[in-house]
Amino acid sequence: MTAIQDAYPDELAHCYGCGRLNEHGLHLRTSWDGDETVTRYTPQAWHIAIPGYVNGGLLASLLDCHGTGTAAAAAYRAEGREPGTLPAHRFVTASLRVDYLKPTPLGVELEVRGHATSIQGRKVIVEARILARGDVTVKGEIVAVEMPDRMRPNARP
Amino acid sequence: MTAIQDAYPDELAHCYGCGRLNEHGLHLRTSWDGDETVTRYTPQAWHIAIPGYVNGGLLASLLDCHGTGTAAAAAYRAEGREPGTLPAHRFVTASLRVDYLKPTPLGVELEVRGHATSIQGRKVIVEARILARGDVTVKGEIVAVEMPDRMRPNARP
Repeated sequence: MTAIQDAYPDELAHCYGCGRLNEHGLHLRTSWDGDETVTRYTPQAWHIAIPGYVNGGLLASLLDCHGTGTAAAAAYRAEGREPGTLPAHRFVTASLRVDYLKPTPLGVELEVRGHATSIQGRKVIVEARILARGDVTVKGEIVAVEMPDRMRPNARP
Repeated sequence: MTAIQDAYPDELAHCYGCGRLNEHGLHLRTSWDGDETVTRYTPQAWHIAIPGYVNGGLLASLLDCHGTGTAAAAAYRAEGREPGTLPAHRFVTASLRVDYLKPTPLGVELEVRGHATSIQGRKVIVEARILARGDVTVKGEIVAVEMPDRMRPNARP
């Protein structure tokens, strides 16, 4: 299935969480599923917190990249454009809130689901949740902003 | 220097962020510096977000483990006990808020500093900030709660 991260330009596709060109990364991929976006990931054995449960930082990473990916996907859709058309959308995180509702079991595929609740100019707010075996264990909110042009690798001084 | 994580019991020392027994982990270590706690970490090259900057999920991980470590350190201190005395304090994260104030440069040692703003029963609130070359790039708040006894690996059913 096509993921929004497939549409990131090569020079912006090295993210530790979701960059397809990061050899050591998590390679998170975010796709549409109707009006929601979904990212699936099975944590590694070493992504442990305490025995049997997933590390909170890793869960925050899932929300972070799911959030910026969802923001890009929603921005394209709001403009009636296909991902991959130019100019490329690429969001970064302004703030992240994570509520760990209950321990997240290690050893199963996790599903991150969410949607944009607000698109205003360069700012997109995303609500998301993490499910393990269909049970919501984490809720989050990500405020994503379009990456400033000056941060683009090919920006001219 | 002694870190609060040195006082975690072996069976609770596998955390991906701060477990001394996790072979693939970040091995974060949190120590007192006067009335503040400090955790220092130099991100790896692959902990990239966009070129030149640190991944947001990794920064959230730093706050997460710094927060639970600070909660444990503050709980011992509030009781006038040395870390390592029993019963062992071990906190987990209930919620995490991260404000990315500006991009965090990759390639330098980061310093996470913070303190407990509230200790009430089993709940400790920690305020923290991440500095790069002395400049605050991230602020965060962690709500940590003492790990429930039923989650301890040697808990009896």
